[in-house]
Order: sequence, then C-alpha cells, then structure tokens
Amino acid sequence: MSGNSYGELFNITTFGESHGEALGVIVDGCPAGIPLCEADIQKDLDKRKPGQGLAGTKRSESDTIKILSGVFEGKTTGTPIALVTFNENQKSQDYNDIKNVFRPGHADFTYHMKYDGNRDYRGGGRSSARETLARVAGGAIAKKILAKEGIKINGYVKSIGNVAVNEDNFNQKDIEKVYENELRCPDKNAIIKMEKELKNAIINQDSVGGVVEVIAKNMLVGLGEPVYDKLSAEIGKAMLSINATKGVEIGEGFAGTKMRGSIHNDAMQVKNGKIKFLSNHAGGIVGGISTGEDVVVRVAFKPLSSIAKEQNTITKDLKNTKIKVVGRHDVCVCPRAVPVVEAMLAIVLVNALMQQKARQF
Amino acid sequence: MSGNSYGELFNITTFGESHGEALGVIVDGCPAGIPLCEADIQKDLDKRKPGQGLAGTKRSESDTIKILSGVFEGKTTGTPIALVTFNENQKSQDYNDIKNVFRPGHADFTYHMKYDGNRDYRGGGRSSARETLARVAGGAIAKKILAKEGIKINGYVKSIGNVAVNEDNFNQKDIEKVYENELRCPDKNAIIKMEKELKNAIINQDSVGGVVEVIAKNMLVGLGEPVYDKLSAEIGKAMLSINATKGVEIGEGFAGTKMRGSIHNDAMQVKNGKIKFLSNHAGGIVGGISTGEDVVVRVAFKPLSSIAKEQNTITKDLKNTKIKVVGRHDVCVCPRAVPVVEAMLAIVLVNALMQQKARQF
Amino acid sequence: MSGNSYGELFNITTFGESHGEALGVIVDGCPAGIPLCEADIQKDLDKRKPGQGLAGTKRSESDTIKILSGVFEGKTTGTPIALVTFNENQKSQDYNDIKNVFRPGHADFTYHMKYDGNRDYRGGGRSSARETLARVAGGAIAKKILAKEGIKINGYVKSIGNVAVNEDNFNQKDIEKVYENELRCPDKNAIIKMEKELKNAIINQDSVGGVVEVIAKNMLVGLGEPVYDKLSAEIGKAMLSINATKGVEIGEGFAGTKMRGSIHNDAMQVKNGKIKFLSNHAGGIVGGISTGEDVVVRVAFKPLSSIAKEQNTITKDLKNTKIKVVGRHDVCVCPRAVPVVEAMLAIVLVNALMQQKARQF
Amino acid sequence: MSGNSYGELFNITTFGESHGEALGVIVDGCPAGIPLCEADIQKDLDKRKPGQGLAGTKRSESDTIKILSGVFEGKTTGTPIALVTFNENQKSQDYNDIKNVFRPGHADFTYHMKYDGNRDYRGGGRSSARETLARVAGGAIAKKILAKEGIKINGYVKSIGNVAVNEDNFNQKDIEKVYENELRCPDKNAIIKMEKELKNAIINQDSVGGVVEVIAKNMLVGLGEPVYDKLSAEIGKAMLSINATKGVEIGEGFAGTKMRGSIHNDAMQVKNGKIKFLSNHAGGIVGGISTGEDVVVRVAFKPLSSIAKEQNTITKDLKNTKIKVVGRHDVCVCPRAVPVVEAMLAIVLVNALMQQKARQF
Repeated sequence: MSGNSYGELFNITTFGESHGEALGVIVDGCPAGIPLCEADIQKDLDKRKPGQGLAGTKRSESDTIKILSGVFEGKTTGTPIALVTFNENQKSQDYNDIKNVFRPGHADFTYHMKYDGNRDYRGGGRSSARETLARVAGGAIAKKILAKEGIKINGYVKSIGNVAVNEDNFNQKDIEKVYENELRCPDKNAIIKMEKELKNAIINQDSVGGVVEVIAKNMLVGLGEPVYDKLSAEIGKAMLSINATKGVEIGEGFAGTKMRGSIHNDAMQVKNGKIKFLSNHAGGIVGGISTGEDVVVRVAFKPLSSIAKEQNTITKDLKNTKIKVVGRHDVCVCPRAVPVVEAMLAIVLVNALMQQKARQF
Repeated sequence: MSGNSYGELFNITTFGESHGEALGVIVDGCPAGIPLCEADIQKDLDKRKPGQGLAGTKRSESDTIKILSGVFEGKTTGTPIALVTFNENQKSQDYNDIKNVFRPGHADFTYHMKYDGNRDYRGGGRSSARETLARVAGGAIAKKILAKEGIKINGYVKSIGNVAVNEDNFNQKDIEKVYENELRCPDKNAIIKMEKELKNAIINQDSVGGVVEVIAKNMLVGLGEPVYDKLSAEIGKAMLSINATKGVEIGEGFAGTKMRGSIHNDAMQVKNGKIKFLSNHAGGIVGGISTGEDVVVRVAFKPLSSIAKEQNTITKDLKNTKIKVVGRHDVCVCPRAVPVVEAMLAIVLVNALMQQKARQF
Repeated sequence: MSGNSYGELFNITTFGESHGEALGVIVDGCPAGIPLCEADIQKDLDKRKPGQGLAGTKRSESDTIKILSGVFEGKTTGTPIALVTFNENQKSQDYNDIKNVFRPGHADFTYHMKYDGNRDYRGGGRSSARETLARVAGGAIAKKILAKEGIKINGYVKSIGNVAVNEDNFNQKDIEKVYENELRCPDKNAIIKMEKELKNAIINQDSVGGVVEVIAKNMLVGLGEPVYDKLSAEIGKAMLSINATKGVEIGEGFAGTKMRGSIHNDAMQVKNGKIKFLSNHAGGIVGGISTGEDVVVRVAFKPLSSIAKEQNTITKDLKNTKIKVVGRHDVCVCPRAVPVVEAMLAIVLVNALMQQKARQF
Repeated sequence: MSGNSYGELFNITTFGESHGEALGVIVDGCPAGIPLCEADIQKDLDKRKPGQGLAGTKRSESDTIKILSGVFEGKTTGTPIALVTFNENQKSQDYNDIKNVFRPGHADFTYHMKYDGNRDYRGGGRSSARETLARVAGGAIAKKILAKEGIKINGYVKSIGNVAVNEDNFNQKDIEKVYENELRCPDKNAIIKMEKELKNAIINQDSVGGVVEVIAKNMLVGLGEPVYDKLSAEIGKAMLSINATKGVEIGEGFAGTKMRGSIHNDAMQVKNGKIKFLSNHAGGIVGGISTGEDVVVRVAFKPLSSIAKEQNTITKDLKNTKIKVVGRHDVCVCPRAVPVVEAMLAIVLVNALMQQKARQF
C-alpha cells in the first residue's frame, strides 16, 4: 500500500524518476515456467516509444530493457523478475526554468506540498509519464500469461480532441493492426481528421486530450471478486492510476445512463447448447464478475499539461510569474498511452485469474 | 484482498445477503476517542432508505443499526467497530420464479458461474444493492473523522436519463439540502423534468440510469499516494465497486478530452499571500495528489436491471425462457445512491489522510 | 493491515470485547460449495470452553455460535461468512477495582497509552483471550478445507511449568484423543505431575506457563512463499498473535542451535520410487516451503497474568498501589490454547494452499 | 503478498539470485527529507560481508550498493528508493555437482517441487542467504528513521552451538561494539570458547547453529497493532523470514514458560512522577503493544546446511547418491546474521511507528 505497487497475486512495484539513474519494475508472483526473454518485453516497450508522428515528440530514447533476476535458462522461476532500463545522458539538461516554478496542470505543486519541498524536478521526476515504461514491461509478462488462457488484449485511440472514430469504418482486424500507424487508430478516415486536430494544436502551441479504448477478447467467465474488488473496480483503479487520466467507463459507461433498462440489459439465449448474450452493453462485466463477453473499457486522457503557450503560475516562494513550457513534448498522449492501457488491463486480468484459481477446490 | 473489504488504514469489511439473517460491517482502524453512537450512523442510513418518491419503491425496511463492539462510554476505543442490522421477515417470500432463471442485467448468471452454482438467489443474495447499507454505515464514521479536519462531503443527483441539472440553477447551499427532496437533486426545474422521465419509465415498465456527483470541500493539500494509489485511482476503485456503476470521472472527466491544454490547465496565482487556483478543471487532483481545491467526482449508474417488461433469458439448465421481474423495485437507483457515493468518497479520503499522517516525521 | 485481520486469500476479521455485546468473525475468501453448519463450528468452540479441570476456571460460558451470512442451503457460497456469539449477562459485573488500576502483565497499561485513555476495561476488553473464540470459529472452516486435501492438524500440551511430556509415553493416536482429558495432554504420566504443578500454583495464588505443540500431518509439498512470506514466517506471525505467547519454534527450534549440521540436515532417500526424508529435524519446512513431512510447531505461553497474589502496580493517575486480581481465572492457559493454536495453523495452511493454487497454470 | 515484500507503510521488495546479474531492494514509503547517501547503506552492508573470522568464509564479495532512485540532492523524496548491487564474475563457476542433486537441509528440493522444476541452482539461487544483503540495505534506511525518534537497535551473538554468553561478563557498551570482533559477541570469555566450538566443527567438516539476540532501546510506548498485527507477531514473522531461522522468542520466551506469574509479571511503580517497570520479563511487549521498555528478541539459527562431510541424498531423477558440499561456506551463520536481525527489527518498528502516527487525530 506504499503507493508504487499494483496487484496482490501478480504484483508490480516500480521505481525511478524521469531523469534519474534508471527506471524499473519488480514483477512478483509470476508463475514459474513461462518462457521469457528481453525481446518479449522490448517488443511492447517499443510501442510506447516517443513516436515520429504528429502527436509524439522528436526525442530519441532507447529504453533498452534488461532482466536482472527471476529468469533462468529462458524461463521464469517463480521468483521476482527485476526489469530495468538505465537512463542515458540524464544529467545534460538545464532545469533552471522549472526548478522553482510550478508548471500549470503538472504535479509540481502537489509533489512539492506532499513531500515538504523534497522533489526531483528534472523532467517531472517521479510524476513523469516515463514511469509508464515500467507498467508496459510488467504488462508484457501479464499478456504472456493471459495468452496461455487464450485471452487477447487490444487497445486503440478512440478519439483525439473532438474527432472520434466511426465504428462502421473498421473491424477487429484493423484494431489488431493499430501499431502500424502512428496514431494507433483503426479508422483511416478518422486519422486524417485527427491529424488536422493535432496540427491545429501545434500551431496554437497547445495540446489536446482524447480517449483510448481497450478490449479483452476470449474472456473467461467468473473473473473478479464481487463487492469491493469487482473486476470493474480494479479496472477503474488501474486505469486512473495512469498519468493524465480523468475518467474510465465500462461497456456503455456514461452514455448508458441515458438508456432504458430494457435496452441496456443484455438478454441471454441458448443456441445449440451454447450460452449467448444478445448484446454487450455491460462491457463484459455484470455484478463485478466477467460474463465471458468482451471486456470493453474506455479511458479519458486530459490534454497534456506541457504547452509552449504562455500561462500564469507561481514560483516556489509564492510569487506570480508566467511560464512557457518548452522542450520536446507530445501534443496528445493517447497514441503512446495505448500500450500502457493494454498493460494495466492485462495486469488486472492476471490477478483476477489467479485469484479465481486460488478458490478452485 | 478477499473481496469484501476496502481500505488499508481505515478498513471496512462487510457481510450479509439481501434476504439473509443480517447485514453488517466491521470498521477497523478507526482512531480512538471519536464520539460515536448508533444515532450518528442511523442518520446516514435513513438517507438511503427506500423512498416514497417516484424513483424509489414502496418497501418498508427499518434498517436499524446496532453497534456490537468498538465503542465504550460513547467513544471509539480504536478496536474494531462492528455494526449490524438484522433482516426482518426475510423468509416470507416466494423465490420460485427467480431460483432457476438468470435475470438479464443481474449478477445471477455471473455468481452462478463463479461459485459453481452455489448462490443465495433470494433478493439477489450478496449481489443485492442492500450491501450498500454497510458502506453507508462505515462512511458515517469516516465522515466524522473528516469533519475533525474540516472536510465536508456532499453528493447529489446530476442527471436522470436524459435530464441533467443546469448548474446556473443552484448553489452550494442547495446541494447541502438535497436530502430534503426525494430525488436528491438541487435544481428545482430539473426535478420536474426528472419526474416526467421517471413516470414515463414506470408507464413503460422500464427503468432509467443517471449520474451522481459528489464534492469534497475544504480539502487538504497533499492527500493521495502518487503512481498506483493515486487519490483518483482509489476513488475510481471505490466508486466502481458500487452496484450498477459503469463509469467514473474526476473534474472535467470525459468532456475534458475535448478541451485544449491551455484551457484545461488550472493556472495558479498568489493573492494576499495565499495560493489560489484560477479554475478547477482537474477536480482537485493533480498527479494523483489533492490540490486543496474541491474534489469533484461523477459516477455513472446504469438503468436498473429489474424491470417488469418481459425479457428474453435462459434457465439454469440452459433453456430459453422469458421473464418479467415483478416486485417493488426502484425505477432509478441514483437518489438512493447519493449517500453511498458520499460514503465511499469519505472512506477513500480518510485512508489518504491517515496515510499522509503516517509519513509526518 | 488495520490489525484485526489475518490472511489474504482466506481472511478472518474478528471483533468484539470480552464483556461487550458480542464477539465474532468474518471469514472472507472461503471457497464455495463447502458443507457448513453451526454444529461444525460449535464442535471446535466447545474444545476451548472454560474447563472443569485444574488449569481452567469454573465459569460457564455457553459461547453459542450463529452463522449470519455466507452459507445457503447448507453450503458455503463464496461470500463472507459472518459468525457471531452474543455475550450473556455481560453487564452484571462490578469493575471498580480494575477500572483505574493497571494489572501487572496485562495489556491495561499499553492499551491505555496506545489509545489515549480510551479503553474498555471490563474483562480486559479487546485484549481478553476471549477473542480467541473467533479464531477457533474461523479455524473450524479452515480445517474443513484442509481435510479435503487430506491434511490433519492436532495440537497438545507439551509442558506445563517444569513438567514436560516424555515422547516415549505416547503416540499419534494419543495425540488425536487429547480432548478426552482436561489437560489436553497425551502422556498419562505427565498429566499426574502437571496436576501437581497446577495445584501447587493454585495454593500459592499463582499461575504457570507452558508449551503447546501442534502438528500438521499428510502435508503437501511446496506450500509457503519463500523469502518474506515463508511458511515458517507466517506460522511465526500467526502464533505470536495469540494472547500470552512469547515464543515459537519449528522442528528442532532452539534446541537445534546446539546440533551439528551433519545431524540437523534431514537426508533424503528414494525407496520403491518414493522420496523419503530419513529424519524431520526441520519440522517439515525448508527454505520456507513445506517438504511434505509433518509440520511441527511449538508455542511458548507465559504464566497467566491474573493472579490472586498481591502485586505492586500503579493507578491511571500515576499513584503506587497494590492489587490482587480476584475472580475466576485460569491457572494455566495451555489446555484451552490447544484449539486456538490448531486454528491458527489451519488458517496459515489454507492461505498457503490457496496461494499455491493461484500459480498453477 | 506475492512473497518478496515486507511491510505495508514502510515496504521493502527484494529481488535477485545469488549468482544472477544483480540483487536489490525497492524501499517504498520512506518519508521525504531524510538525508541519505550510498555510504549510509554501505556501512551496514559491510557488517554482513563474508568475514575473515572462523565462522565466516574466505570469499571476497564487494557488495557495492548503488542508489538508482528516490534520493535527490542528498535527501529522500518520498518516492521509491531502488538499491542495487551487481554480482561480479557470477558466471565463472561450475555447478554440475549441484545441478541435479538436492543438498540436504537446503531449499533445493522444496524450490524444485514448488516451481515445477524451474530453479536457478547456482549458489542456491533465490534461496541463498545472499538475499539478506537487500534486507540490510533496507534496514539501514529504517534505522535512520528510528534514530530520529531516538530508538537504537543492537544485535549480538548470544550463543554458538553449546557456548552461550554469560550476561555478567558484558554491558550495553560492549554490545554496541560487537562489530569490532568477528564473532559479533560482547563476552570476551565466550568468544574463546566459541572459537573452539567453531574449530572443532571445521575439523569435523561440519557446521554449528546459534542464537542471535537483538535489543531496541529508547522505545516509544504504544507501538504495535493488537490482535493479529501485534508487535510480537510482526517480529515473529520478520525474524522467521530470515534464512536458516527455526525459532524466535521475546523477553523470557520459552524459559518464561517455567516461571510463575508472580515472577514473570513486570510490576510497575511511579518514581518521581515517572512510570517505571521493575523488571522486563515481557521483553518490552505486553498485549502486542510496546511498553516503552527495551524490546528484547532472540532468534534461533540452525547449523548451516552446507558441510563438507559426506551425506546421503537423492538426485532430481530420484536416484540415491551421496554429496559433499564443497566450496567456501560459513561454519556458523550467526555472526553475519547479526546485522540482518537488526535490519528486520528496524523495519518492523518503523512500520509500527508509522501506523501509530496514522491514527493520531
């Protein structure tokens, strides 16, 4: 409960600051005998690398992951898996402009207050989204475990600013290929409009928000501990622990509040001896437990806080000032957030799966 | 982590089925010396009692709470506080119609599958929203602790179906008086339209969803453990653990994804030596830590699953059938959910507060 | 972590003060489908009832247990099982003699200091060994689960004061029948000497300590999470959480520190294709993981603090005084502690078993 | 609960195998603003380095610790502190003799069984006492926090094999200087006899066990959560999580079971307005809560499993064989265990201290 861990049975504990020596994660509770090598993890990490697209920055970070423990002769041993990436050239920058000024929308002020002024201000320190690298690393292992049960997880960018995808324009195959385009979006028409939205934000030295959707397919029935550890509750926590998130919804979510029960209720039918839901407004979770239908989750990301446009703010010693946050910042976090959202869902599901196994007598 | 507890430092563990012997909660970790009597708790419980309004049912449940432990000579002793209410006449009903049929939208099917067919089907058993009584009881104690720090929590119905409040029509005082009307809504104009929405649903033997908003005022700065136990993450988990919830958002939430960073970022200014945020789009939480501004949370409730309208479904032995869920069901859960949402936010905040105190050396 | 719970997957949370309204336990995480009725639990509770023997008191407590939730149609449902016993005539006594005086060896002073003077002094309040009733109730369920895997747990009194059993005088069958004698001791010769020891203490208005041994037979190999949650570590915690305990040892324990490695190491041999340990100095646990041999644990109980002999002490307002703790107190806790020690080992093992199942992919 | 973490508020999570790439620890929950540098930690690590004395080996391990995160400008920031030491030349050895054979007394067999044959056999892998390096590193930080409250922790070797110290021969000052001698023993006379015991074991290609005592001075009153998380229970868990431990006792421990209550009870007196205990048989803990007196704990270490003497055992493919465990092994673990025992007590106490602070309203 010290704040830097998620999960009880499959547990990740992460460490590291944006511009510190290293970032990493300890994955504890991983079953033994899972084939694992650095390339398995690197593959997912590369999906969240700073892109060359419009939303991303021009930074080059290698983010090379190293396994320090828990794997022997190519397989997990059941002992903690330590994964680490060392930050390169982390001391070269000049931080004088942000050392004493609280950047609007950033965690500078809240960290300063919470930790009595002790704060690594370089690149946002611990509050930097660079921490999500460790989540993706842990999630890569979780995905391997889920794959053994046939469960597959795919995320994509649902909207950027005012531009949303049109669900008629794409299918599951397109979703599985989103990493082939820089916006991680399965709708080609939407991509064109999203690029306009991004360009407009860049011209205005501004940023935009968006929504990421993630889907788990081939789900097992019965995952999730009802009441306080509902599958939906765990997803809610996991998603809202990601940087820049301000909302999460499952199935119809907020739109469902405007539906009638007769529509929203997913009727069941038996066909050829098999149980079938006639719809999936619930997003695969009823009473906090998985129904076996696709788990469908959407996460709201606020517009990024770092903008070049001048903003009002204050200094550490309580003086009013103005700031332009310069540097190589993303315009919209959503494309890079897709693998992070996938990772968190994978980690939630592995925990639910292991907990369900624990009760099988 | 066994599923029926929330909170680490201020912990609630609840038990009981809808039509079983009793429902209750153990509150563990409560500081000693807090004045507490049954009336303190009953007062909040009465707010979630089945109402006489359009949204509620005509049931009469007394829900009388009894303190079994943890209080001595009118004050808490620091030991676990057991609160229990005994169900009255719980065995009088006939359950043959739901014993073998999975009600659409209900947790009947998922409990059946998760627990290998072992399920108390009477009134939904453990999956019934009657469990929220125990949350409200625990929350009443949490609120008393927060009150010592000056923190106040108020919830209200933001929308029912397609009818939402208009923020120009009410103020903080109206919010504080929402329990004076049966819809727990501070906007008199909206109430009239909401009643129409509810009547229309009743006529159609249907149900409607809605949104509850909850606000914590006079917040302390610095609450919430950044990264995995962000204040927002804990709120996300707590809210999505409530029955019938499908979404949660903080501050601007999903609407914020359409805003530009220059608008969404809450600028700070110093006035007369005091730090002031010029807006609160963040809903009082930045980087997972409270800013001191109001914490603003909205929770999406789906339309209730129990409707009198005929629906397709299946039986336990996999036969297709139809069901009309008769009985005294609410049409919309939102009015009765308001004290539940308040309770969960109170419990989250007490935990964050205690954890922050633990680090003060 | 709030202090009144043990176990993560199979979790007990207890509440209640010695002379309060009620004592109880919530058992969370119990698998569904286990046959369970009140008699199953009462049977074990009756083993810890105040005895008629020399070690015990002449009190009569009925300690009738009631199941409030979690069981339906005679089987567990996977939801929390609430067990409660209501205290009878709890308000009849006069507590003026202990209200303001700290009894030596009791938790009066430490509770007073920890909880800022808020303390239910009646019968020791929460610090009373009456709380162990709730452990035994929870343990009765744990034993039923272990029995499904063939694991059996038996405890007995190993020594009282200076009198210890002689292992040549009894066998496993005698151990299984210890509840037939009031000292819960399998060695008839030792019983005679123990009775003398107890009589001598009674005459001197004094109390004696002792050692309880507990053995788990038909163990599975591989239980226990190495490093911090070693099976031995969990046993250490569980046993030292019992009232009046001051030590715990596994296998040879402290005596083993005087052995040479060549003797202490348990050699292995294969006979007829089966693995056999040639000795069990390790007490069934190596590297924190069960070997499959019997788990053997001994727990040290201090002499009971309540004695009629006059002792020096102080009052709440810091005055020196003398006290004779009168009333119906046990002379030695060990006989009544046997079912408590069994219960705690059962709960530890069920947790280890469930955790091991969680990793089986 | 995944097995490689200890502590809730001040949490350590360790990773690494004996001959793997690296060993390390993440310390989470450390308050901000504590001055910390690598030398602070290295100082304690050097105390557990393989010695040159009779009990130790002739290995040279540098065990240089590196801080990867959580410290900025010489002070802790409240974010996770990652400490790591890289193993040198870890791949040079030949492991063919132990790859397929289970060494008696070692965790080879139990790990093999628990993890389905997936096991890093090199130097014992994760089961090696080399892991305790990470505990000492974490404990060094815990000690710094305790020092702020005035609490000091000192351990020493109480006995080796049949040779125990004589408490008349040394005082607190001698205890504070034990790191000046290789046996970490404050009794000069005992050291001579212990050396004989060790020499005798070496000649016989054997090993010996022993007892380590640890004392916390200047304790605060009121630490420890009564019932399941008693201070004694936490100490029990922490100590029995250390490699090669088979017992733990507090205060008089097992010897106390032979005392009468009138002797064992620690009477209290007020002198000059100050509360004084007239004895400390309880070892500073009553009812699971600290009394303010010294916390006194003893831990039993079995004779080390690695001995050069030939022993019977079996191979992985279930054949009988014999083994001589050659290499540079310690003869007795106790001297090197002293800083480990100190570290674990420090970590327990910091957690208890933080939890107590959390309740101060």
